[in-house]
Amino acid sequence: MKLLRVGTVGAERPALLDEGGVLRDLSGLVTDVDGALLADESALARVREAAEAGTLPALDAEGLRIGAPLGRIGKVVCIGLNYHDHARETGAAIPEEPIVFFKAADTVVGPNDTVLVPRKSEKTDWEVELAVVIGKTARYVDTAEEALTHVAGYAVANDVSEREFQIERGGTWDKGKNCETFNPLGPWLVTADEVADPQALSLKLWVNGELKQDGTTAEQIFPVGEVVRYVSQFMTLYPGDVINTGTPAGVAMGAAEPKPYLRSGDVVELEIEGLGRQRQEFTDA
Amino acid sequence: MKLLRVGTVGAERPALLDEGGVLRDLSGLVTDVDGALLADESALARVREAAEAGTLPALDAEGLRIGAPLGRIGKVVCIGLNYHDHARETGAAIPEEPIVFFKAADTVVGPNDTVLVPRKSEKTDWEVELAVVIGKTARYVDTAEEALTHVAGYAVANDVSEREFQIERGGTWDKGKNCETFNPLGPWLVTADEVADPQALSLKLWVNGELKQDGTTAEQIFPVGEVVRYVSQFMTLYPGDVINTGTPAGVAMGAAEPKPYLRSGDVVELEIEGLGRQRQEFTDA
Repeated sequence: MKLLRVGTVGAERPALLDEGGVLRDLSGLVTDVDGALLADESALARVREAAEAGTLPALDAEGLRIGAPLGRIGKVVCIGLNYHDHARETGAAIPEEPIVFFKAADTVVGPNDTVLVPRKSEKTDWEVELAVVIGKTARYVDTAEEALTHVAGYAVANDVSEREFQIERGGTWDKGKNCETFNPLGPWLVTADEVADPQALSLKLWVNGELKQDGTTAEQIFPVGEVVRYVSQFMTLYPGDVINTGTPAGVAMGAAEPKPYLRSGDVVELEIEGLGRQRQEFTDA
Repeated sequence: MKLLRVGTVGAERPALLDEGGVLRDLSGLVTDVDGALLADESALARVREAAEAGTLPALDAEGLRIGAPLGRIGKVVCIGLNYHDHARETGAAIPEEPIVFFKAADTVVGPNDTVLVPRKSEKTDWEVELAVVIGKTARYVDTAEEALTHVAGYAVANDVSEREFQIERGGTWDKGKNCETFNPLGPWLVTADEVADPQALSLKLWVNGELKQDGTTAEQIFPVGEVVRYVSQFMTLYPGDVINTGTPAGVAMGAAEPKPYLRSGDVVELEIEGLGRQRQEFTDA
């Protein structure tokens, strides 16, 4: 299923994109697309049955804002340098184990919402990423195979990053990862049963129409199951938590000088195979 | 005012500790102690009036669990190496600007709840800290003085840390800061009007009755107002967000070998002048 949330900021309603591409209202069936829904197998089954029966009311998609496809997000765990080609372009060594950092849940916005270039930013960068949404509490999970059973679904994320704040201002990366609006998510949360192999998805990102990132999750150093297993050794993952699993090569930081960092007026579009497409206009904070 | 939340995990009710030391029920007046309450001046005024009028029903404190004094926490921003004496003991240089890292809100537990030593942990450590609770959205705040007006109150926090996970496992510090139960908070949220000078508070921590940390917020490299101002340049702080402002000297990592890291059975007590006292038993996860 493709689950989403539509409407104005803070007042999104749950919806579903059906097999025929018609937007369906879920608000008569569930209160939100959130961790509580993802952890509730019978509620998900009711949604699936209603979708298959074709009884859900259609929504007029015209002019309707798409929000992030997940409400009440707990935490957003991010994996750094998780693609062989991206590690090479940044000149970093291949990590021996996953690099973990955080984005605050309040950085998450809809897939087509405006993104703000922070004040005094000279190095705002893009990162197309496969986001993993947790559906079942993961705590000291033993194997990567078992870890995959804790994944409710997948979505497109832009892990927007300010490289000066991230790297040149002391301390951890978090300083350059948590500016407001820095985590567009969506358009859909695609349930895991519809993603046959999370390690065989193409990811693409364009800036002002020019293709910048063109990768595949096959290049991930630590695949999704291993990432979830690994993270669960250090912290407990709850339904409604998100993991951004890293970005392939092609970010501004990896380009030749002068590096093409984002400015007000730039448009970023990104897409992952089967998970949909985002489009953000950047403007000054 | 001393605001708190009492009751079983996940079902805490709002309460107030009055000037006579009597616990008062706030659940007839407000739904929770959370960012929404802290941002609502008229609701806070009603609580204050009721407290002064002595009309709030008393609660029997006997056997009542104290939860974290803040519900629905947004994010927990942490400042590293923010005390001159702690920077010295760890051998780190004095930071030129604040070091920022994160704890997930789901690590927050009550002040006297059991804390879990993570599996495979050899280096679980303590950190008594002054926690700052945001009451008014802070975004690109200009001065430290103005930043203080965004602070709703203060509380005691234990920024429990696993040093191997934090420092020896690659990537950022977050890996050693987000194990479950790693952020005891409370007992109270003391409103800012009752804290005459946040830079003149003594902080103490004992392990199994032995005094380990004995510091003062006067040793902070970046005082509270400057921390809030600084952080607001990189991310937006919302009502109900928390900042752990760093720890003074005396952590296990700073001790002579063999360093006295925490084990199952250890008892940690901590206290900040005017903000109350915590007591945690540590046990294996």
